Amino acid sequence: MLDRTDPEGAIAAAAKRCSNWGRWGADDVLGTLNFLDEANRREGAALVRRGSSFSLAQSFDMNGPQKGWRRRTNPVHTMLDTGTDAERGTQGFPHGLGGADDVVFMPLQASTQWDGLGHIFDHGLAYNGRRAGEVVTSEGDQVTGIETAAAVIAGRGVLLDVGRAVGDDGELPDGFAITEEHLERTIAAQGESARVGRGDLVCVRTGRLARARREGWGDYAGGASPGLSFTTADWLHRTEIAGIATDTWGFEVRPNEFEHAFQPLHQVVIPHLGLFVGEMWDLDALAADCVADGVWEFFLVAAPLPVTGAVGSPVNPLAIK
Amino acid sequence: MLDRTDPEGAIAAAAKRCSNWGRWGADDVLGTLNFLDEANRREGAALVRRGSSFSLAQSFDMNGPQKGWRRRTNPVHTMLDTGTDAERGTQGFPHGLGGADDVVFMPLQASTQWDGLGHIFDHGLAYNGRRAGEVVTSEGDQVTGIETAAAVIAGRGVLLDVGRAVGDDGELPDGFAITEEHLERTIAAQGESARVGRGDLVCVRTGRLARARREGWGDYAGGASPGLSFTTADWLHRTEIAGIATDTWGFEVRPNEFEHAFQPLHQVVIPHLGLFVGEMWDLDALAADCVADGVWEFFLVAAPLPVTGAVGSPVNPLAIK
Amino acid sequence: MLDRTDPEGAIAAAAKRCSNWGRWGADDVLGTLNFLDEANRREGAALVRRGSSFSLAQSFDMNGPQKGWRRRTNPVHTMLDTGTDAERGTQGFPHGLGGADDVVFMPLQASTQWDGLGHIFDHGLAYNGRRAGEVVTSEGDQVTGIETAAAVIAGRGVLLDVGRAVGDDGELPDGFAITEEHLERTIAAQGESARVGRGDLVCVRTGRLARARREGWGDYAGGASPGLSFTTADWLHRTEIAGIATDTWGFEVRPNEFEHAFQPLHQVVIPHLGLFVGEMWDLDALAADCVADGVWEFFLVAAPLPVTGAVGSPVNPLAIK
Amino acid sequence: MLDRTDPEGAIAAAAKRCSNWGRWGADDVLGTLNFLDEANRREGAALVRRGSSFSLAQSFDMNGPQKGWRRRTNPVHTMLDTGTDAERGTQGFPHGLGGADDVVFMPLQASTQWDGLGHIFDHGLAYNGRRAGEVVTSEGDQVTGIETAAAVIAGRGVLLDVGRAVGDDGELPDGFAITEEHLERTIAAQGESARVGRGDLVCVRTGRLARARREGWGDYAGGASPGLSFTTADWLHRTEIAGIATDTWGFEVRPNEFEHAFQPLHQVVIPHLGLFVGEMWDLDALAADCVADGVWEFFLVAAPLPVTGAVGSPVNPLAIK
Repeated sequence: MLDRTDPEGAIAAAAKRCSNWGRWGADDVLGTLNFLDEANRREGAALVRRGSSFSLAQSFDMNGPQKGWRRRTNPVHTMLDTGTDAERGTQGFPHGLGGADDVVFMPLQASTQWDGLGHIFDHGLAYNGRRAGEVVTSEGDQVTGIETAAAVIAGRGVLLDVGRAVGDDGELPDGFAITEEHLERTIAAQGESARVGRGDLVCVRTGRLARARREGWGDYAGGASPGLSFTTADWLHRTEIAGIATDTWGFEVRPNEFEHAFQPLHQVVIPHLGLFVGEMWDLDALAADCVADGVWEFFLVAAPLPVTGAVGSPVNPLAIK
Repeated sequence: MLDRTDPEGAIAAAAKRCSNWGRWGADDVLGTLNFLDEANRREGAALVRRGSSFSLAQSFDMNGPQKGWRRRTNPVHTMLDTGTDAERGTQGFPHGLGGADDVVFMPLQASTQWDGLGHIFDHGLAYNGRRAGEVVTSEGDQVTGIETAAAVIAGRGVLLDVGRAVGDDGELPDGFAITEEHLERTIAAQGESARVGRGDLVCVRTGRLARARREGWGDYAGGASPGLSFTTADWLHRTEIAGIATDTWGFEVRPNEFEHAFQPLHQVVIPHLGLFVGEMWDLDALAADCVADGVWEFFLVAAPLPVTGAVGSPVNPLAIK
Repeated sequence: MLDRTDPEGAIAAAAKRCSNWGRWGADDVLGTLNFLDEANRREGAALVRRGSSFSLAQSFDMNGPQKGWRRRTNPVHTMLDTGTDAERGTQGFPHGLGGADDVVFMPLQASTQWDGLGHIFDHGLAYNGRRAGEVVTSEGDQVTGIETAAAVIAGRGVLLDVGRAVGDDGELPDGFAITEEHLERTIAAQGESARVGRGDLVCVRTGRLARARREGWGDYAGGASPGLSFTTADWLHRTEIAGIATDTWGFEVRPNEFEHAFQPLHQVVIPHLGLFVGEMWDLDALAADCVADGVWEFFLVAAPLPVTGAVGSPVNPLAIK
Repeated sequence: MLDRTDPEGAIAAAAKRCSNWGRWGADDVLGTLNFLDEANRREGAALVRRGSSFSLAQSFDMNGPQKGWRRRTNPVHTMLDTGTDAERGTQGFPHGLGGADDVVFMPLQASTQWDGLGHIFDHGLAYNGRRAGEVVTSEGDQVTGIETAAAVIAGRGVLLDVGRAVGDDGELPDGFAITEEHLERTIAAQGESARVGRGDLVCVRTGRLARARREGWGDYAGGASPGLSFTTADWLHRTEIAGIATDTWGFEVRPNEFEHAFQPLHQVVIPHLGLFVGEMWDLDALAADCVADGVWEFFLVAAPLPVTGAVGSPVNPLAIK
């Protein structure tokens, strides 16, 4: 039972129970990605049976959900050269060559993303007990920058469609806290291919993105949402998964389960577990395919863009079945 | 034999011989990615034997090779919130939570990338014979934007280390034009695992990046370089590969093989073949591994970031063996 | 009388009556700024009696009115170095030095601005009859870039507080079209210091910004607004003013006075008159001062930031009385 | 005499002698701009005799001096809509309307600028003795943001052409330290109109920009340069000027006059005097005019762009004579 009035106490207790600090040495920068080893990658690749590929990324453009909260805009894409110019002949290239280049301005948390280990701190401490100010300065994450994970994230993926297993019409309502019981019920409903184990990359579908698509973004980015209950910290720790991703902006349930709180589960799982968390993933097409063939596991390749020192990264995850 | 004085004629002739316009229908937006089917993806996944993963991306940061040519800067990464602030307690979050967010401003052609089909035009025409000004306006690529390829690029990868097979100390000099003969000699030297066929993703290592790392960037971005000869257009067409990537900024040899020319092979392969071209890939660590185990093929997953309407995309390609 | 069903005809007629094409030669890039000569500047400077200075700029930040329409975001300001880092001692400078730098990403039309002459076209033609595609390519305005006006815009300013003279409680309602009669009535009400003549920089206050401040931005940027009537084109031409600025996003009334139209007065005054138009200026504090002292003229210095090739520029106009 | 081995001691001593902390109250955010009052503004305006106007800004574009040091790029200007598109008819506006919009990405220290009071710290302290981490966080300057100076900077300007008075052919060599004696000699040579007093805005021309224009940027931004000697701190304090600007990147001489040092004069004048410092101003055309008419004073209007929380601002200063 959560004491709704004491998030700080609950966070401290969960952090103590679930800490991975020192587990992989004082210099570790990978956290739970250490669970994802070559055997996982072989197991993941062996799941490619049909050769079908699904992009789990939302589109990166101005029609996204961001409204400026925390200076998060939608990606602004502009052209440095265009086909219109090329066709008109203003570019000055020889022998009929024309070209188009482009540029993007993009908060790294704007759309489909991985949170890096420098994204969240607990009382001024980052993953592995480092002081936050020694890790992430205005020059970026000097220690656990997302580039450290550039080559790692390819392994067995599992989709848990909690929206379908537990919700109505495939969707959980805003404020719905997904507990360990809901996760286990979903696994049981989906069968053996949905088992979750060490090194897995777990995708949790709530249906929140499907609702935003149908009804408009509204407060999709930053507002109320279904998501993982604070109480799943132990499950996330015990299962020894390498990463988890959801189709919501913030992974955990909003409003949070404490009276005055903001993303308390983040505060446990990122700095203490060193868990890689994916947000705003688009799991709908993949989910439809899994329903159709009854197979909920796949090869998941979700390599972050190695922006040096980034505390997160946009990503185009591919699920291959 | 190339007539060095007539790039326009040579381009027209090659374009005629190698055109894929209409091959996959008038509405096609994928070009040679049509060669990459589910069977290729199964074949690629089956190449995962050890489970080792290699990132083929350079780092995305200010220490990159760009110097402002064509307004291409290196990626500028800045923080919206920092660990220093979190540690100092200025962020205003409850219960000890601290956070760090970040943002990037980045030409999409700045570092490791895919060229999209809207990147290059021939006499005002884009892939499949569309008018350039109907495809790429200042609002981006309305037809062949890189998002159309979001789910496709996972398949059998092959590394051709031409630098090692043909060059001295693993490197080709600037201005060295890699011909079909050099490619075939490399394949023969590397053996059966280096065969190239329909739907493959071919990585050509010249050693140019290794040289830049040793000697400093110099003119790595935009300057002299080894690269594919204009004469390889037919090989690129005949082999029916899905894509090709190099460790150079511009894929083809510079200076070009004509007297007054700029990237004539681009002008053939992107608009006429619809070929996906990768540039500035880092193939060195992968090459070392291939030398060590004698296996030059692997599962290559190189999903572009689906920036809507982009004529190219930064990418973190993973080669998994 | 406007034929509400024929904006195209009305635009063509007004353009013919009011054209300044060729007036200052075929090479002219300054349009109505040609009216602003040294005598105007002397006259303006002589209006500085008290030495009081008023900034007519809104603040440039994320709390602005933009919502992404036409990819116009609010300015995004981020830090490259911070005081928090300096205080913590992470910067590596000698002898106790600390520093802070910053960067901005900003649509030039996001906030208080001048429209340049390359901002609007009529049937593919820019100011002075040039073809739009020869003037503004993806490399910017090659002819009338805002840098050409870098040294010019300092002269006699006049504030016409139409909101106060004609509106209720100092504000005009959205959709209110300010006609020549309203302008003249305001001048008459304000007295001799409000006369408008050749070379003047005219500021028209509608009260729209005051309403947005009170009620929230709503659709301030891009939505309904009071503004100049299409019928003022002749007045704008006849008075030979050098520039005009309003406290609204778009200078002219919205919805426009034709049935299916978008900013028809822009289409006349920018390409045909070569008129410099300022938008989103904050005239409220200045207006209060003018009410107080009964003097509606001042020295106005509103030098655009000379971003080479820009079709407009953010500006911090100073009115000095 | 400077002890070249002890910058820290020299800084501490100068800071003690010249401190303005508390001079204008504990809440002051304007520093030396407090010297610039209405009388100064009247005096400045009265200097407008001919009505000639000079822009003192460099152009803001990719052809600037920045090379990426401290993530300072040149301004990147891109188009959101173009005339080429308008002419081709792809924009979808009614009645023949066409438009062009644009956007800029720009370090605020990239070109002609004002340093704000939050730009430099001394041992973790900002102007008026505030702690740096309480003033400038990753959300910007919360106290002395450049917007606080939005309406102030218009007053009497004085040009001191030290390059002409002291140098050869109008230029001082790199590493030349301008002392109080050089400043006074220049004033004496230029005559009465060059006197410097309380509230003035002093422009110091070294000729460094002219040299960069002739020889190429080289290390103009961040490299060796003539500039003010550390020893001028007392003169800057005693004269009670409101601001000072130079045609160099960094205001003070480089290399600095201490053995291991970086911008020690900044460390005194910004946090301790609260002095407004302008850098990369283009004083050449104005200087030529002053030579021609023998008048070295003018009305200077240099209003920063009020980017909220900025520690500096690009500016287009106008000198009006």
